[in-house]
Amino acid sequence: MPSTKTQPARGMRDFLPEDVRKREYVIGVIKDVYERYGFEPLETPAAENIETLMGKYGEEGNQLIYKILKRGVHEGTGEADLALRYDLTVPLARVVAEYRDKLPKFFKRYQIQPVWRADRPARGRYREFYQCDVDVLGSRSMIVEAEICAAVGDILETLQFENFTIRMNHRKVLSGLLEGFGIPFDRQLNALVTLDKWEKIGSGAVEVELQKHGYSLDETTNLVTFFGKLTDRKVRSDRITVYDWDLFSEVRNQYNIETLTHLYQFPSEDEEFFKGVQELATILSLGQSPAKPRIEIDLSLVRGLSYYTGSIMEIGVPDLGGSLGGGGRYDNLVGMFLGQEVPACGFSLGLERMIVVMNERGMFPQELVSSPADVMVTIWPYKDAEQKLTATKDSLAVARILRNSGLRVDVYPVRNAKLGTQLTYAAKRGFPFVIVIGEEERTRGHVVLRNMKTGEQQAMSPHEVVSLVRGK
Amino acid sequence: MPSTKTQPARGMRDFLPEDVRKREYVIGVIKDVYERYGFEPLETPAAENIETLMGKYGEEGNQLIYKILKRGVHEGTGEADLALRYDLTVPLARVVAEYRDKLPKFFKRYQIQPVWRADRPARGRYREFYQCDVDVLGSRSMIVEAEICAAVGDILETLQFENFTIRMNHRKVLSGLLEGFGIPFDRQLNALVTLDKWEKIGSGAVEVELQKHGYSLDETTNLVTFFGKLTDRKVRSDRITVYDWDLFSEVRNQYNIETLTHLYQFPSEDEEFFKGVQELATILSLGQSPAKPRIEIDLSLVRGLSYYTGSIMEIGVPDLGGSLGGGGRYDNLVGMFLGQEVPACGFSLGLERMIVVMNERGMFPQELVSSPADVMVTIWPYKDAEQKLTATKDSLAVARILRNSGLRVDVYPVRNAKLGTQLTYAAKRGFPFVIVIGEEERTRGHVVLRNMKTGEQQAMSPHEVVSLVRGK
Repeated sequence: MPSTKTQPARGMRDFLPEDVRKREYVIGVIKDVYERYGFEPLETPAAENIETLMGKYGEEGNQLIYKILKRGVHEGTGEADLALRYDLTVPLARVVAEYRDKLPKFFKRYQIQPVWRADRPARGRYREFYQCDVDVLGSRSMIVEAEICAAVGDILETLQFENFTIRMNHRKVLSGLLEGFGIPFDRQLNALVTLDKWEKIGSGAVEVELQKHGYSLDETTNLVTFFGKLTDRKVRSDRITVYDWDLFSEVRNQYNIETLTHLYQFPSEDEEFFKGVQELATILSLGQSPAKPRIEIDLSLVRGLSYYTGSIMEIGVPDLGGSLGGGGRYDNLVGMFLGQEVPACGFSLGLERMIVVMNERGMFPQELVSSPADVMVTIWPYKDAEQKLTATKDSLAVARILRNSGLRVDVYPVRNAKLGTQLTYAAKRGFPFVIVIGEEERTRGHVVLRNMKTGEQQAMSPHEVVSLVRGK
Repeated sequence: MPSTKTQPARGMRDFLPEDVRKREYVIGVIKDVYERYGFEPLETPAAENIETLMGKYGEEGNQLIYKILKRGVHEGTGEADLALRYDLTVPLARVVAEYRDKLPKFFKRYQIQPVWRADRPARGRYREFYQCDVDVLGSRSMIVEAEICAAVGDILETLQFENFTIRMNHRKVLSGLLEGFGIPFDRQLNALVTLDKWEKIGSGAVEVELQKHGYSLDETTNLVTFFGKLTDRKVRSDRITVYDWDLFSEVRNQYNIETLTHLYQFPSEDEEFFKGVQELATILSLGQSPAKPRIEIDLSLVRGLSYYTGSIMEIGVPDLGGSLGGGGRYDNLVGMFLGQEVPACGFSLGLERMIVVMNERGMFPQELVSSPADVMVTIWPYKDAEQKLTATKDSLAVARILRNSGLRVDVYPVRNAKLGTQLTYAAKRGFPFVIVIGEEERTRGHVVLRNMKTGEQQAMSPHEVVSLVRGK
C-alpha cells in the first residue's frame, strides 16, 4: 500500500474541472472589462528574491511569507534566498523600476495571479489564493479613481452582483480630522486601527477601546460624536431590496453631499486635509455609471495600515463579512525600488470571496456546471477484429467533423464495450447527446443522434448533428 | 537611493503586456483544441507536501526541486515541509488517488500551469516555465494515443506550425529488441541511454559509447546494424519545403510499413514485444488527420528513463534542437499513490519552446503585437476649472459608450495637458484612433475621430465611431 498522503498541502486546493470552469468564467469577465478600460496584462514570477519582499508587509507579513531554501550545496545551511509572491503590488513596483524605459508614461496594468500567505486557514481563507489587481501609474488625477471604480463596478454588474457598495475615504482627510481633534500624526495609529472596527463593533466599543489606548476623554468624545453623527445616517443598502436606481442614487448622493458639507465646515487649517476633501468631491463628480450610484463616502474606512497615501476604497455586499476587494492611492511604494516617487492608484479584487458569494447565491450560468462535452461518440461493438477497427475509425472520423465545427466531442475510449455500457457511462457523465453509428447508418454515411434527456433518436448526417446540437 | 535589486529572480521572467498577450494566444488555442477533444481542465496548487514530490524524479530531480522552509517557530530548523510543483504528472496522480470517487471512469484532463526547476538557466531554459499537459486515465486502448496525437497535431496546425513530425516508439518494443540481441532487461539501461543520442551523435559515436559501457562487440554490431538500417532510411522532413501532403503521407507511410515489417519479422518469442508492435500498428491505423501524415515510427526514440511503460512519442520541427513536447503511456505512476494500477497516457507541450519558435518565425498574428487599446479619448484642455470638469465628464461618458460596445478605450488620465501633448502620447503608444471633443462637437453631441495612421479626422456620433473602428 502506498503511504503518501494524497491531500493537497494544508490551506491549498485542487480545482476539479467544474471549479476551474467557474474560476475561468469570473477571470474572463474581469479580463474583458479591464481590457475595455485600456488596462494591459502583466505577469511576474511566483518567486521573488527574498530581499524584494522582506520588510514590505510589516512584521506580520515577514512571518507569513513562504521562504524557499537555497539549493545544492547551500541547502544544508537552512537559509532562504527566494520567497513566494505575497501580493501583486510589490512585484508591480519592482517591474516599474526595472523597465521604466520600456513602459509608457501612464502604465495601466492588470494582473491576475495567485499569491501565497502562510496564514491560519479558515473558511474562505486559503494559503494560495488569486488576486485580481488593476493599477494606474504616472497620474495624480482623480480620473484614475473614477475609471477604476467604473471598471470594478462594471465587473460586478456583469457577474450579476446587485447591491454592492463602493465605500470611499481619504487618508489625508482622516489624518486632518484626527489632527483637528488634537491628535497629531504620530499619535494617530491606534485611533485609526480602532476606527477601522466601527462597522464591526459599534460606537460604544470604539469609545472603550480608544480610552484603553490612552486617548483623553475629550479626544474620545469628540471623535466618537463626530464619526457617530455621520455613520448613524449611513444608507443601509442591505435594507433595500427593490432597486429604483435613480431614486437610490439620489438618496446616497444626498448622504455624500451632507458628509462633504461636514468636511468643508470642519475647523481645520490643514491644506492637505482640504485637498483630500476636494479629491473625494472630484471622484464623486467624475463618477460614471454603474459605479456612480454605489459610491458612498465612509469616514470610518481605514484599510489597514498599508501603504495608502490618498483615496481609499473598499467594495462590499450585504451579508458578507469583509469585502470583495479594495484599493486606493499610494504614491511612495514605487520609490522604494526606483528612488523616485511615482504616483499610483490601484484596486484588488478577491477572486475567492467573489466565488464564495456567487456559489452561495447560485450566480453561475447553468452551462458552466453541466456537461463535460457536447456530444459523446460511441463505438459499435463488433466482435470481429477488423470490423471493430473500421468502426473505431468511423467514430473517430465523425468526431473529427464535429470538432472541426467547434463542438466539444468525447469518443468512448475503449473498443470492446457493449453499447449499453457506453450509454450508461454517457448518462452518468451528463453528455446531452450521444452518437451511435450502426451498420445501416454507416452504409448511408449517417449517424444516429440520441438526445439523452428525452431519449429521442434520429438518423442524420454529421453536418446536421452540428446544427442540431448548436441549436440547443 | 534604494538598494534593492529590481530584476526578477535568476532564471525567472517578468512578462510585459505584449509577452502576456502572446502567451495567452497560444494557451487559448491549446485550451480550445483540448476542450473540443473532450478534455476537462484541472488545476493543482503550486506547492505540494514535500513527500509527494521527493523520490518521484530520480536523484537529479530531488536536487532540482525548490523546497519551502517550515514557518513560524520551525523556520529556524532549516527544514522544508513543502516543495514547488516540478511537473504536472505527479500532481495528477495524487489527484486521481484523492478524488477517485468523484472522478469519471475515464478521466480526460488538461492542465496548463507553471512548474519550477532549479536547473542551470540557459537559452530557452528557465526555472519557472509552463507545461501544457493532457492525460487520459482509465483506458488501455490505443484510441487514446490516436486522439492525443490528433489533438496535439490540431494545436500545432492551428498555430501555423507546418513541418512537424510526431516520432513514435514503444518501450516494450525497445525492450524486446534489446532482449533479442542478447541484452536482458537488467542490462538495458545504458544501451537505452546511448540509443537515445542516435539522432544527435550518429551511429559511429553510438557504437563507441556502447562498447565503453561494456557491451560485447557482437551485441554492439547487431544493435548498430539493426537500428542503422532503419534510421538511415528515415524520411528527412526538414528537406521538404513544398507540401504535397497526400504524396508525403504515402512516403512516410511506406517507411512506417517497412519498419513494422522489420519488427514483425524480428526473431523474438517475447509476447510483450509483439503486443507493443501491434499497438504501434494500431496507433498508425487509427491515426486521424492532421496527425496521421506526421506520425513516424522511430525506434531510436527513448524519452529519457522516466515512468513510461508503453507507447512513447515526441514532437519536433526542423532547426529546433530538442522537441516541442512529448509523452507516452505510463501504467504504474498512479499506483504509487492509489495502491492500484490505473492505465494512463499523456502528452506535455512545452509552451516556452513553442513561443521561441513562433517568435523566431514571426508566427504571431499582427494584432497581438500592436496597440494597447482601440481608441484613446483626449480631454479638452480648458483653463477654467468648471469647464475642465465638464470636459472630463464628457470624455468619460464617450469612453463609456464605446466600452459598452466592446471597444478597448483609454482615456488620457490627466486633466491639464495640452492637446498636442495628448496626441503625441497617443502616437507614441500606437493607438490607431484618437477622439477629440471640442466646443463645437460637444454642443452637437459629436466627437472628432482622428485616424492616427492617415491623419484624417472627421466629426461623427459615438455610435458611428464604434462601427468605423470595428470595421478596421
